[in-house]
Amino acid sequence: MSYDNNNIFAKILRGEMSCLKVYEDEHTLAFMDIMPQADGHTLVIPKEAAETLLELSDEAAAATIKTVKKVAKAVKQAMQAEGVSLVQFNGAAAGQTVPHIHFHIIPGSLADARSHARNMVDNESLKPFADKISALLAS
Amino acid sequence: MSYDNNNIFAKILRGEMSCLKVYEDEHTLAFMDIMPQADGHTLVIPKEAAETLLELSDEAAAATIKTVKKVAKAVKQAMQAEGVSLVQFNGAAAGQTVPHIHFHIIPGSLADARSHARNMVDNESLKPFADKISALLAS
Repeated sequence: MSYDNNNIFAKILRGEMSCLKVYEDEHTLAFMDIMPQADGHTLVIPKEAAETLLELSDEAAAATIKTVKKVAKAVKQAMQAEGVSLVQFNGAAAGQTVPHIHFHIIPGSLADARSHARNMVDNESLKPFADKISALLAS
Repeated sequence: MSYDNNNIFAKILRGEMSCLKVYEDEHTLAFMDIMPQADGHTLVIPKEAAETLLELSDEAAAATIKTVKKVAKAVKQAMQAEGVSLVQFNGAAAGQTVPHIHFHIIPGSLADARSHARNMVDNESLKPFADKISALLAS
């Protein structure tokens, strides 16, 4: 499938849309999910253009999981969560809503999480979580 | 937290317990989940001893996501699924039931999947799926 350059994560990567960023390096970006399934729900994306993990290069996949690990640690600590769940959907049939590969980092259990991509919140309500997470990542 | 050498995935890695293997390389192993949430539900684990992704080395994490990508492609094709979901739980509080880091590869949507770690099936019923997936991975 061809990559859609106008998906919202491509726009975020180009700086055409804003996000509440908590981490960025050469290959990856992490920011708050604006439809959080739990407080502290964070997304990690590679900068490489790929719709799903299946099309992502091994190099970009390695960089992405390294950032996922780093950010998941910070999210767990910032939210004082006992556990943290990762979810990654490939294809609309799997529930993927933005066609740029992304990992969901969700504090706690999915059994307690709210529905995926259901209710949008404003950045203001996410900022306290973003501040805590990015402070840990910067330290 | 210290790694429990007697967890069932450690036993599988040491050959003390059997599994329906679909793929193995120097750093990783993939096999059928015996409590499948959907037909074709497959697990990928690193050989490195680590309870969660948070303790796994970056090198082992890179090897693991490379195998996850490879196996997810084969699972999707073998099961003729339109999408494939990845789930990875860190900590019992997140729903992790075996304390050796593992990625779940689940064909289709989690919304349609059965409950996690609920009902055990026998290897016989999983073998047709394992055969299809491993044939694709061997080709």
